[in-house]
Amino acid sequence: MALVGGGSGAFIGRVHATAAVLDNRAALVAGALSSNPERAKSSAPDYDIPEDRAYTSYQELIEKELALPEDKRIDFVSVATPNHMHFPVAKAALEAGFNVICDKPMTLTLAEAEELYQVVEKSGAVFAVSHNYTGYPLVRMARQMILDGELGEINAIRVQYIQGWLRTKLEDDASQKQAAWRSDPAKSGAAGAYGDIGTHAYNLGRYMTGLLPDKVSSHLATFVEGRKLDDYGTTVIRYENGALCTLTASQISHGRENDLSIEIDGTKAALSWRQENPNEMIIRKNGEPHKIYTRDPNAPFMNAAGVAACRIPSGHPEGFFEAFANVYRAAFDAMALRATGKDFEKKDTIYPNIHDGVEGMYFIQQCVASSGQDGAWLPLKHEVARR
Amino acid sequence: MALVGGGSGAFIGRVHATAAVLDNRAALVAGALSSNPERAKSSAPDYDIPEDRAYTSYQELIEKELALPEDKRIDFVSVATPNHMHFPVAKAALEAGFNVICDKPMTLTLAEAEELYQVVEKSGAVFAVSHNYTGYPLVRMARQMILDGELGEINAIRVQYIQGWLRTKLEDDASQKQAAWRSDPAKSGAAGAYGDIGTHAYNLGRYMTGLLPDKVSSHLATFVEGRKLDDYGTTVIRYENGALCTLTASQISHGRENDLSIEIDGTKAALSWRQENPNEMIIRKNGEPHKIYTRDPNAPFMNAAGVAACRIPSGHPEGFFEAFANVYRAAFDAMALRATGKDFEKKDTIYPNIHDGVEGMYFIQQCVASSGQDGAWLPLKHEVARR
Amino acid sequence: MALVGGGSGAFIGRVHATAAVLDNRAALVAGALSSNPERAKSSAPDYDIPEDRAYTSYQELIEKELALPEDKRIDFVSVATPNHMHFPVAKAALEAGFNVICDKPMTLTLAEAEELYQVVEKSGAVFAVSHNYTGYPLVRMARQMILDGELGEINAIRVQYIQGWLRTKLEDDASQKQAAWRSDPAKSGAAGAYGDIGTHAYNLGRYMTGLLPDKVSSHLATFVEGRKLDDYGTTVIRYENGALCTLTASQISHGRENDLSIEIDGTKAALSWRQENPNEMIIRKNGEPHKIYTRDPNAPFMNAAGVAACRIPSGHPEGFFEAFANVYRAAFDAMALRATGKDFEKKDTIYPNIHDGVEGMYFIQQCVASSGQDGAWLPLKHEVARR
Amino acid sequence: MALVGGGSGAFIGRVHATAAVLDNRAALVAGALSSNPERAKSSAPDYDIPEDRAYTSYQELIEKELALPEDKRIDFVSVATPNHMHFPVAKAALEAGFNVICDKPMTLTLAEAEELYQVVEKSGAVFAVSHNYTGYPLVRMARQMILDGELGEINAIRVQYIQGWLRTKLEDDASQKQAAWRSDPAKSGAAGAYGDIGTHAYNLGRYMTGLLPDKVSSHLATFVEGRKLDDYGTTVIRYENGALCTLTASQISHGRENDLSIEIDGTKAALSWRQENPNEMIIRKNGEPHKIYTRDPNAPFMNAAGVAACRIPSGHPEGFFEAFANVYRAAFDAMALRATGKDFEKKDTIYPNIHDGVEGMYFIQQCVASSGQDGAWLPLKHEVARR
Repeated sequence: MALVGGGSGAFIGRVHATAAVLDNRAALVAGALSSNPERAKSSAPDYDIPEDRAYTSYQELIEKELALPEDKRIDFVSVATPNHMHFPVAKAALEAGFNVICDKPMTLTLAEAEELYQVVEKSGAVFAVSHNYTGYPLVRMARQMILDGELGEINAIRVQYIQGWLRTKLEDDASQKQAAWRSDPAKSGAAGAYGDIGTHAYNLGRYMTGLLPDKVSSHLATFVEGRKLDDYGTTVIRYENGALCTLTASQISHGRENDLSIEIDGTKAALSWRQENPNEMIIRKNGEPHKIYTRDPNAPFMNAAGVAACRIPSGHPEGFFEAFANVYRAAFDAMALRATGKDFEKKDTIYPNIHDGVEGMYFIQQCVASSGQDGAWLPLKHEVARR
Repeated sequence: MALVGGGSGAFIGRVHATAAVLDNRAALVAGALSSNPERAKSSAPDYDIPEDRAYTSYQELIEKELALPEDKRIDFVSVATPNHMHFPVAKAALEAGFNVICDKPMTLTLAEAEELYQVVEKSGAVFAVSHNYTGYPLVRMARQMILDGELGEINAIRVQYIQGWLRTKLEDDASQKQAAWRSDPAKSGAAGAYGDIGTHAYNLGRYMTGLLPDKVSSHLATFVEGRKLDDYGTTVIRYENGALCTLTASQISHGRENDLSIEIDGTKAALSWRQENPNEMIIRKNGEPHKIYTRDPNAPFMNAAGVAACRIPSGHPEGFFEAFANVYRAAFDAMALRATGKDFEKKDTIYPNIHDGVEGMYFIQQCVASSGQDGAWLPLKHEVARR
Repeated sequence: MALVGGGSGAFIGRVHATAAVLDNRAALVAGALSSNPERAKSSAPDYDIPEDRAYTSYQELIEKELALPEDKRIDFVSVATPNHMHFPVAKAALEAGFNVICDKPMTLTLAEAEELYQVVEKSGAVFAVSHNYTGYPLVRMARQMILDGELGEINAIRVQYIQGWLRTKLEDDASQKQAAWRSDPAKSGAAGAYGDIGTHAYNLGRYMTGLLPDKVSSHLATFVEGRKLDDYGTTVIRYENGALCTLTASQISHGRENDLSIEIDGTKAALSWRQENPNEMIIRKNGEPHKIYTRDPNAPFMNAAGVAACRIPSGHPEGFFEAFANVYRAAFDAMALRATGKDFEKKDTIYPNIHDGVEGMYFIQQCVASSGQDGAWLPLKHEVARR
Repeated sequence: MALVGGGSGAFIGRVHATAAVLDNRAALVAGALSSNPERAKSSAPDYDIPEDRAYTSYQELIEKELALPEDKRIDFVSVATPNHMHFPVAKAALEAGFNVICDKPMTLTLAEAEELYQVVEKSGAVFAVSHNYTGYPLVRMARQMILDGELGEINAIRVQYIQGWLRTKLEDDASQKQAAWRSDPAKSGAAGAYGDIGTHAYNLGRYMTGLLPDKVSSHLATFVEGRKLDDYGTTVIRYENGALCTLTASQISHGRENDLSIEIDGTKAALSWRQENPNEMIIRKNGEPHKIYTRDPNAPFMNAAGVAACRIPSGHPEGFFEAFANVYRAAFDAMALRATGKDFEKKDTIYPNIHDGVEGMYFIQQCVASSGQDGAWLPLKHEVARR
């Protein structure tokens, strides 16, 4: 495994590194940890990456790794750079034959995403996008329940991702690298809050319900003066089956952390789940007590999809790393098949894939466009995105 | 006190009766409990209303009470009928000089509401609308905090009122009187969920923040086949100061009871409150622990508005009746002033008044209209409503 | 109805008054509100008690009310004085033929309690003790479930009543009347925290499970220097069936309000309930999702005992007053039977009665004694207490 | 790193393996995974342990690893066997010079624990006991706060560890290996629930408060017929400063998972924490709102001890593995010092050490003894245990 991005000051690079090794199925042996060559080198010991494989650019990484004998070189590249570098790094890695696990949003623009789709298709490599919230056991369980019809027809989704860290203009503080690039259109893309967390919220609703979107009406706002991108927004989505989704993302809600929550109303039952308390899911039916499903791999009420995503007994909290590692685990299974020349699923994967990546970029583009037209309804059907 | 409506099978009539007597400041002595004369009579003993003041119509009630000596007759009429009767009853009572406490939504149509406004103005009587959620001590406290600027400028409101009781077509069941009239446009008005609970959610946001609305974009839906009115809807409101509000009301969410909740984001702090757990309010500021304010009349952190609405020490739950009774209590204070010929506040009251009633009807009308135009932005400024 | 106690500065007198009138089945028409004659008079208008029935002593109250024609006089006396006056007031009222609703702990000493038992027996009057927590609908429901065997054999109870208001030596502050008498052995009795709230915790466990106690080992403590009575204590109770109960009461836990909570483990299921969130009860069974039973009078899962104690639909919180009023309501039913000369249940009542009152005093005495012997096991079987 | 124990069917071996590698500071390269040689071999691939270092006994492991050149051999042994094997394995490993991380309870008997203490002292090796709950960031933070006096003098502790998995006689089911050895005195030791989880509860109270124990009164029970060891128990502990602790452990509470919770009352503030929701801690002070401290490494309110134990930003749940890994991380720091010949702290370590291990065994012994004498107070002062 090689890591691109993740130099000191970063957050998500470390998460990728930890998630990848959690099950002892991968070792981090190479990296191009920063676009700054010095920092790329100096950050390597933090990850126990040996000096000779601490590269100063992703190009060097790919070239040098390709030059190693096949059984010594890396199997996959994890891309944890700022958004604008996702595309070139992922493309280069795929074209070199490496599998790729790419952070989200997948690219800077929809055009890049569509091009990357072609690259993935041609490469035959495994490609995953780290919509990591899909990795929580109860999210996987809920998805299976819904696909199995246990909630009936889905009528409504309410999904929110509420944060507060950009309540002030943090990007003006030089020490705040995260804030700086995330609020810079050149590095982050057309959307701020919607690119960073709105896409997660959207993906979660799609992943859990499998509903196909029809159209979107979006209202983005920038409440912190002088900020270049949206830091708040509320969006209404109409799905093809008539279901209505309300999606809100905020970076300006004081004290809120990573409060991603979802409520799904079906004709047979309703469901609630919240990322900050991920080992519980509430399912309600009229006339019955509310039911709290805890993440319990030994319980008869857990379905196979849920059980497969658990590592330890109930009551011992699994968290963010374990969910993230579940995305990796599923991708590793596919990589193992590829390595032995076997077929592996490319479209209907348990992990978020290139289709989801394209969809995320399309969602961002259409939200920004709709918001620019005062919330006009725009289509939300994209051929590649419809997995 | 006289009660109009509230015959057997009703819910809100009993609530009015209980709330009114809770502080031992009123006695229920007369009623026209049903439009069905027999039931009007037979329901009277349930309320300990003496037979001779158990009237068979509101007209009879007003006529006969007026005929009593002043010190024997009622001071006010509580209107707890189905919506279509609010207007004629309230109008007649006001014109007879009685104070009125009217259930919400205030009338069947906006036109009626506007006419009633004229009647109230002319009468000089006390008129309150039972947006009872405003009576919770922590709602009162939050309102005062916001008006005092403790949350800074308000940027965003997210308010939901989620129920599940109309998940099936209950109105087809003859024994379900509530469901029947509430889903019948002739008795309920232009909206279903939005008339019954959407107005509460809207009023709560307005009451707590004092923000003035600018425009509205609404998406109503009917998910239960054959139902005549909306049972779900999501609405975006733009306030004059630029704040964005997302408001969702549902009657079709399995297992949900009366889950009215609100989150308010200010530049200085953010606030959350939920009706089903009304004795707690969470206030968050970046860099500080989340703070749970409990309803505590003895605590230094409670403001005067909050303390005044409490009856018992913290940790002993106050609930729905006590909040409802707080609306009554505030109206009683005004009635006492009127009775002694003194001036009393008519516009900026602590209890919801005729302005709020008109605004509620205007909100319903504009939501229904916007939804009919696929969510087009419509104005939400009404002269009378802007208290 | 007459109220004894409840003058300005009191808490529980107002609660009795409110609970009694909540259902419009009683009117507060007389009182001896304070042992201070002036305050007894001056407090009367707060309760709308007419001046001529605002008596200056309980003796006067009884004498003058007896002198009224039967249809004008009060039916019952509510005793809301400091503990040391419960016995003389209740005794006098009972001997005059009035029904009595007495605050807890029932008397100052066990000897008084035993004597009062004789008085009650002889009087034929209705006598209730305000262990008000038994009035919560879900407590009533849980009790019925347990008596019906739905939890199986009960093995363990964990019950706590945690407060913080006496964390400092509040009794030294002259304005704190509650703190003063509650920490004065001459007015409060042999125990402080255990008299005030430990008895509630004990009663709740007994009421909900019906288990008969065998013996007790108690450890009381006084953590605030100079305080005369216990402000903390933990107690182990062995029931006759072998079940083990851990009971903790505290008045010195910073920030805690009235946190009475109970967990009950049966062989078939386990149950949790908490007074500060009284409209929810959690029932757990191995292999099943945790189930939240909400107070829902319309739900098929509510048993008759629970439904009978509800006033409004689920999701609209009922609280402390309503629970308190349920004790009154049950006592009113008995009074109505007595008034018409009918038989009424005296021992196995839905409301806490003289047996529970005696048991509370016995519990206090044995805890204090056991604690004085370093937690020695003492018997907890009292003939009168075993209802 | 070598793992002893952890063969298929085990739970805690996998946890040790995952915790050890989480930060990429160790690799699992050798093991003696089962006392059954065949299973010892067949389980190795699950951990990616190469065949030639998959030993069939701990003796072989130690012998063969010692035979390797120093830079190829393991640095430490993790002991994750049933309890009765902890002592021989740990002793042998220490005597061979390896560092040891040992599961809890540390040994089968107190005598073994005392002997192991001598072995550790003599070895100069790093020795940690996996009281893993001490690794949660908010537990570390709370401990530092209390040691710094922020809660004032500690008066009371209430700690519970509630499970339900042994509600039925699971040990009779041959497939339930965990249940079988844990309820077998020959493999588990003198206590059941108290050995497995009571020790955790006790250790947590000691770790967080630093209070020194004085004496103990314990009541153990076996509610499942035919079970050989306790499955429930409640214990009162008196600390030297007069503080009172109530400790309850249960394995028979339906539906309960790993509900370890603690409440600590100080003269200045009170604190609550619960393992199943470990990223929140509530601190209360009279007169102030309740404060929820979330695990937030970037917040000014977090102390250094708390921050040092965090890996990711707030709102992204850290869980059981991360806490467990924090015990490893602290032990690794000590191992690194030892490896370079430097001094390292042996007594006052951030990780639980041999002193805590001895104390755990002493606690078990005294609880069992006290319970055998009907809860007699027995001393709880052990020289070695008093770190």
